[in-house]
Amino acid sequence: MPEAVSPTVSLPQDPAVDAAIDADRLDESLAVVGALVDECRMELAPEALRVRAVDPASVAAVSLDLPAEAFERYEAGGETVGIDVERLAAVVSLADPGDLVRLVLDAERRRLHVLVGELAYTLGLIDPEAIREPLDPAEMNYDCPASLTLEGRDVSRFVDAADMVSTHVRLGIDAGAETFYVEASGDTDDVALAFPGEDLAALSPADAESLFSLDYLRELARPIPVGSEVAMELGTEQPVTLSFAVADGTGTATFLLSPRRAVA
Amino acid sequence: MPEAVSPTVSLPQDPAVDAAIDADRLDESLAVVGALVDECRMELAPEALRVRAVDPASVAAVSLDLPAEAFERYEAGGETVGIDVERLAAVVSLADPGDLVRLVLDAERRRLHVLVGELAYTLGLIDPEAIREPLDPAEMNYDCPASLTLEGRDVSRFVDAADMVSTHVRLGIDAGAETFYVEASGDTDDVALAFPGEDLAALSPADAESLFSLDYLRELARPIPVGSEVAMELGTEQPVTLSFAVADGTGTATFLLSPRRAVA
Amino acid sequence: MPEAVSPTVSLPQDPAVDAAIDADRLDESLAVVGALVDECRMELAPEALRVRAVDPASVAAVSLDLPAEAFERYEAGGETVGIDVERLAAVVSLADPGDLVRLVLDAERRRLHVLVGELAYTLGLIDPEAIREPLDPAEMNYDCPASLTLEGRDVSRFVDAADMVSTHVRLGIDAGAETFYVEASGDTDDVALAFPGEDLAALSPADAESLFSLDYLRELARPIPVGSEVAMELGTEQPVTLSFAVADGTGTATFLLSPRRAVA
Repeated sequence: MPEAVSPTVSLPQDPAVDAAIDADRLDESLAVVGALVDECRMELAPEALRVRAVDPASVAAVSLDLPAEAFERYEAGGETVGIDVERLAAVVSLADPGDLVRLVLDAERRRLHVLVGELAYTLGLIDPEAIREPLDPAEMNYDCPASLTLEGRDVSRFVDAADMVSTHVRLGIDAGAETFYVEASGDTDDVALAFPGEDLAALSPADAESLFSLDYLRELARPIPVGSEVAMELGTEQPVTLSFAVADGTGTATFLLSPRRAVA
Repeated sequence: MPEAVSPTVSLPQDPAVDAAIDADRLDESLAVVGALVDECRMELAPEALRVRAVDPASVAAVSLDLPAEAFERYEAGGETVGIDVERLAAVVSLADPGDLVRLVLDAERRRLHVLVGELAYTLGLIDPEAIREPLDPAEMNYDCPASLTLEGRDVSRFVDAADMVSTHVRLGIDAGAETFYVEASGDTDDVALAFPGEDLAALSPADAESLFSLDYLRELARPIPVGSEVAMELGTEQPVTLSFAVADGTGTATFLLSPRRAVA
Repeated sequence: MPEAVSPTVSLPQDPAVDAAIDADRLDESLAVVGALVDECRMELAPEALRVRAVDPASVAAVSLDLPAEAFERYEAGGETVGIDVERLAAVVSLADPGDLVRLVLDAERRRLHVLVGELAYTLGLIDPEAIREPLDPAEMNYDCPASLTLEGRDVSRFVDAADMVSTHVRLGIDAGAETFYVEASGDTDDVALAFPGEDLAALSPADAESLFSLDYLRELARPIPVGSEVAMELGTEQPVTLSFAVADGTGTATFLLSPRRAVA
């Protein structure tokens, strides 16, 4: 579909960023970031669009990488802009399936032009300095003893099940049984799920167990595509990471969630 | 499908009105009227069912014409009845797709019998004199300098987009560029849409621009079928009219919306 | 699909009940019971699972029978357990279409293990003595003079239509006209439906008419499958019963609703 440039909008002559991407790819990527934060710093590096963000309570972090290959066209020089995630997502949601979204940065006037078909939306940018400092990427690489890979739908399923009885959930690996397990206990009811290694796409077992908040896990599970493979890293009283592909496999997203201290 | 007459309902012997119409056609037509008013005067003229109505604030008007051809059967003598639009629509919504709705007027007892399959609904009529005087049809024929035709889905799209940033929207035509444009400005974000003449089903250009309330446009856009062609007439600080076919092309509907005075 | 036993859950060695049933069958059956009560006594007799329950106001009753044939496997010795219907239904709703739900009773620890795929949910049981005494089954066999059979979708339709004008509805049979009728009267509008014998799957006519609460009928109509045949028994100022098949025709459910005294 051809990109339109509205005659009523004046685009910058030599924009710092000029990119075009399939609307569904951008929509899915913004949902990942929006699961955790309302505003984010978006780095438009020459080789990739990157977001690193921490939630206001510093309990969870998200990392999103959309390399140039995720785009139809990608020209960027390394600018970092402050984005209202929900507003940008709302504009993108006006696109029809298959539409391209064009992003043109007017660095001088601090505006991002979002062009979809005959629509030109001018998004006012936020001062990146006013947005919470993102996590150092190195901090998201914990030295986790155990890892496994399961389907997105299984993540949703164990979160939904645990959510029926409690506000927190234990995720662990039984190295002997080569099984990933999920446990939640309520006043009258308990929930347990067990995924033996042979039902998982991958499992590097080592004894591990940590407790996590379901309020967070529910939000993180929402944008994970049901059919995607989710790589998890687990330790003992360590954060869990969930990594999965976005944008038709061209990009990657990782959530990191800190453990909750066990209730005595 | 055969029409049923409930043995528990006594229909008038020689009814002033006896008509039958496809449920979807009636449903769609009532949605158009219901976008603007809760109650309306319905004229059951010998050659057509007609509604003319003005919203309580006198900002917008609607005109609906369902000629006899829109019906499976249509016998009427010119009565005008007062209808609770929402209640009649609720009855019609009980029909299955393809069902016929039969309307039988009991003028003496001021009731409209609405028959759908085995269901006989007796709708109490409202005194037409108690309903706000409709607009003189002549008042809906403004001498607008410019006109254009676009798809119903585009009307929804520009209303939704403008609604994201403001409570009012500018609709205009740039005669030189032969373009229909839509603009809305918010505190941080702006929206602009441009429909060049070659993308429109029709365009009779002349410079025109008026400001309209999005609260109204949102309601008016809702019942317009996405696939229909919508003929618009525009002027400068003049009302806009939106006309489109209803009831599988057998009937016509027109909305008229007064301009809002520009905020200084 | 193979049943999984979670390694993190210890099932009783020789359980009093061990049964497996298609998730949709159980879901549908629980919806029938849940239309009337939040908690129920469930009898796990050797030949069938049975529920008899009365709503808190003693206006309506439900009877559900799922014989052993409704299950993939059914081993039970006659225990009666107290179940939180909504919570059990929520667990079952986590199953995918075609999944089996396994129910294992730990009588000693008063827990029901509900196993779905890799999920093991441990449902705390309620003391059956703390649950309202169910109706004597004999009380649900009224000596009704008239009976008829119509489709589930028609039950929904007459309830929805009557609900538009009133809080109660008259159900009756005109023996002379061989017609089942439904009537409701409101302040301005009336509703009447007539189902002649030839449009019904069955009709044993006798003059009958009783008045019922729509608040109850609305709840009872909800879980009745639209395509099912519903056998009704009616009398004059007597309860109505609605019976229909559940679990792909292997089980049966009956609702009984007491009449409302006519408003003078």
